[in-house]
Amino acid sequence: MNYVIVIEYLAVIVSAIYGVLLASRKGMDVMGVFAVSFAVAFGGGTLRDLFLDRTPLFWIGNPHYPMIVLGIAIFSGFLVRYISRIRPLLVFPDALGMALFTLTGTAYAMDAETGFFVAALLGVITGTFGGVLGDVICNEVPSLFIPSPLNATCSFAGAWVYLGMTQLEILHPFALVSGIAVIVLFRLAAVRWNWCFPAVREPAAPVDP
Amino acid sequence: MNYVIVIEYLAVIVSAIYGVLLASRKGMDVMGVFAVSFAVAFGGGTLRDLFLDRTPLFWIGNPHYPMIVLGIAIFSGFLVRYISRIRPLLVFPDALGMALFTLTGTAYAMDAETGFFVAALLGVITGTFGGVLGDVICNEVPSLFIPSPLNATCSFAGAWVYLGMTQLEILHPFALVSGIAVIVLFRLAAVRWNWCFPAVREPAAPVDP
Amino acid sequence: MNYVIVIEYLAVIVSAIYGVLLASRKGMDVMGVFAVSFAVAFGGGTLRDLFLDRTPLFWIGNPHYPMIVLGIAIFSGFLVRYISRIRPLLVFPDALGMALFTLTGTAYAMDAETGFFVAALLGVITGTFGGVLGDVICNEVPSLFIPSPLNATCSFAGAWVYLGMTQLEILHPFALVSGIAVIVLFRLAAVRWNWCFPAVREPAAPVDP
Repeated sequence: MNYVIVIEYLAVIVSAIYGVLLASRKGMDVMGVFAVSFAVAFGGGTLRDLFLDRTPLFWIGNPHYPMIVLGIAIFSGFLVRYISRIRPLLVFPDALGMALFTLTGTAYAMDAETGFFVAALLGVITGTFGGVLGDVICNEVPSLFIPSPLNATCSFAGAWVYLGMTQLEILHPFALVSGIAVIVLFRLAAVRWNWCFPAVREPAAPVDP
Repeated sequence: MNYVIVIEYLAVIVSAIYGVLLASRKGMDVMGVFAVSFAVAFGGGTLRDLFLDRTPLFWIGNPHYPMIVLGIAIFSGFLVRYISRIRPLLVFPDALGMALFTLTGTAYAMDAETGFFVAALLGVITGTFGGVLGDVICNEVPSLFIPSPLNATCSFAGAWVYLGMTQLEILHPFALVSGIAVIVLFRLAAVRWNWCFPAVREPAAPVDP
Repeated sequence: MNYVIVIEYLAVIVSAIYGVLLASRKGMDVMGVFAVSFAVAFGGGTLRDLFLDRTPLFWIGNPHYPMIVLGIAIFSGFLVRYISRIRPLLVFPDALGMALFTLTGTAYAMDAETGFFVAALLGVITGTFGGVLGDVICNEVPSLFIPSPLNATCSFAGAWVYLGMTQLEILHPFALVSGIAVIVLFRLAAVRWNWCFPAVREPAAPVDP
């Protein structure tokens, strides 16, 4: 499982940076930035650990994670000045964080001997919940739930790629990297070419605000 | 506990259908519909299992549940076309789902040897949390919390009916069905005749939106 | 740990009263008031117990807690009539509840042998989450996250004071009371003199509502 921990480190860092960019656009102070980064970086993995009854929680068992997030939040003033010029890139840490966390969720679920379907589902929850939580705290409607470029679908696809490759007894790190690559590329393509599912049905006439 | 599992199956199906109707009115795509159905169907039971430290979570231990919800979401396009004509009936799956989940929450809490009061409370949480979560995701103010037809109160009453009947050593399935019937009928009556509690106090003059 | 339980009792009562004041200003009925009081009083401690895998949850293991909150909600009509004249005092039960819960969170985390940093963090989460949840249910933007008088920072400071004093082998009850006093005084001073962190960065031009 060593590779999974490397991936988790990366996922925490990338998600925290995404959280900083999200929060700073809302005029938050350093404590708000820390809270949003914390929620984005640890929300998905915390749900995963609670759902699978893993103890201690990954960020309690590894205190470096919250320290890293605190460090990123403290230096967010500098970060934001340089990173915000490249605003369009916000989509990349988002996609990468989702991909990395999806794979940790799927891998830990298989460790806990859930079936494939539940493992893929836990991957999606781990991968997307942090971003949803960040949106909710920042008072934005979670883009996950309205017709918008594919998101959870990419995560789901990558989880199945990983699961399939482990069944074919392909080397574990290679299966992990393939799953991540599928998610990131699928997500970037979906954003680039605006791949969406249609609405199941036209919304009721006077749409609620 | 066999009867409780039958009830849980029904609760998941009915709640997922309620979730589909809720989400489709907001113009969501199939993934959004799945997410809302998932939240409505599993939100209450997941909190129950986490609070009572039951492992594995009911939808992880029984992967048929999420598969059923996925199936309902995939065919929601068809479902919505036919069911939406009978819009007023939205209140019925809502009431039934609440009733069924309330009883599973109360029954599992008694299994875990909590007292009666906490068991009834866990029934209410299990029964109402899914609906609240669905409302929150769909960006509606949870009707549970503002003066509106009685809701959690019906759930609470039914939980006590069930607890009382089990104490009187009435047959378990009969106690379950009685509790469910009390909740559904009480809730439908409350909606029909608009039974509300008054506000504790007039809201402050310029009411927040 | 006896002192921590006394503190927990106080924290529940004070937080429930804060919840009543918060909910009654929104025109909620008695069930809504109960739900908000419940969320404010038990939200932080429930997260703490789930994160530390403590079972049973503190309000399941001690059914007096939810009964007290129910009693406070039932008599909230009376409470509100007399307490609401002293509206400005809303800030005091808020500060005291945050302080008391922060200390229980930090103390229980040290019991579970987390490191100091995670213990202080769990203190802050325990202390502030109930209030955030109450704000979210009442549809207010959590003041915790926008530039406003210091809040989580006070909680964090008090947790470190407590941790430092226990390391210096100062008597446990004295360390607890010192931590609480630091948080309450720091918070009241922050509100009185409007101590804020600046925004990390100006918000994007057309600020979302």
